[in-house]
Amino acid sequence: MTYKYEHLVRNINDYPKEGIIFKDITPLLQDKRAFQEIIEEMASVAEELNANYIAGIDARGFIFGGALAQRIKSGFIPIRKPGKLPAETYQQTYELEYGTDTLEIHADAASPGDRVLVIDDLLATGGTAEAAIKLIRQTGAEAVGLCVLIELEFLKGKEKLHGIPLHSLLKNP
Amino acid sequence: MTYKYEHLVRNINDYPKEGIIFKDITPLLQDKRAFQEIIEEMASVAEELNANYIAGIDARGFIFGGALAQRIKSGFIPIRKPGKLPAETYQQTYELEYGTDTLEIHADAASPGDRVLVIDDLLATGGTAEAAIKLIRQTGAEAVGLCVLIELEFLKGKEKLHGIPLHSLLKNP
Repeated sequence: MTYKYEHLVRNINDYPKEGIIFKDITPLLQDKRAFQEIIEEMASVAEELNANYIAGIDARGFIFGGALAQRIKSGFIPIRKPGKLPAETYQQTYELEYGTDTLEIHADAASPGDRVLVIDDLLATGGTAEAAIKLIRQTGAEAVGLCVLIELEFLKGKEKLHGIPLHSLLKNP
Repeated sequence: MTYKYEHLVRNINDYPKEGIIFKDITPLLQDKRAFQEIIEEMASVAEELNANYIAGIDARGFIFGGALAQRIKSGFIPIRKPGKLPAETYQQTYELEYGTDTLEIHADAASPGDRVLVIDDLLATGGTAEAAIKLIRQTGAEAVGLCVLIELEFLKGKEKLHGIPLHSLLKNP
């Protein structure tokens, strides 16, 4: 467990728009040692928090979340962009720099007593993560933590997490 | 390996539009035994085909593809909707009932000599799968097979796969 993979995050300048440095994780996903290492670290977090469900945020959170659910032998809950979940849903709308965005969860995705760990690739300003935590709570389940591959600490997303534990594998890569 | 999970595919009538029966796989994802069983079966396919990369199609293919890459300790390649991959991409546009859709892959996602198994949740008319196979080939790698959770056989998607092996876990559930 000493394989370093931070160099596999590729910085793309001015994407998707000028002034933004996009963190491209595809070189890291392609590297089987890095991908394994990440999932092993996330598995330690899940086990420490005694999570019995993994929730992944649409779409890159599905890659790590699906892998982690397989690794710890838990069920998987997709948190999705609007219009993708066909049964009864709960919704959370949150502010972006310009405008708003919405996430949804199936109302029957989890139940009281369930312990759900939320997974995403990136924590930036925290709006997405906060919405995901609220959605888990709307099902009656407990959001026991947030685990992300990358945390951009200067954007202070951690402050929006309602006090739940945050584990980030790479800070400001 | 005898756990049955077909009953966990939920049929939603008239979604996303009238006359369509949507196959909702979220109850199946939530069921840890079903999810494990599916990934084990996909792992057998990957090992038989000697795949060294798993490609998942945006977005539900990421859940199974990520899990499978973790399970067989391979790298993962995302095949994405337009505007999501920040570096140089190849594109394939394909026909839908009304209009067209496009998928992209990073040009450096795979290389000649790589053996890539493509994963998705559903094979319907085959347009998406065909585009994914062409994208893998554009990188110079070999598309060694397509593995899907659900095949709707009456839509004849299999005919669009350019002869590569298809493995579907559930037929017409």
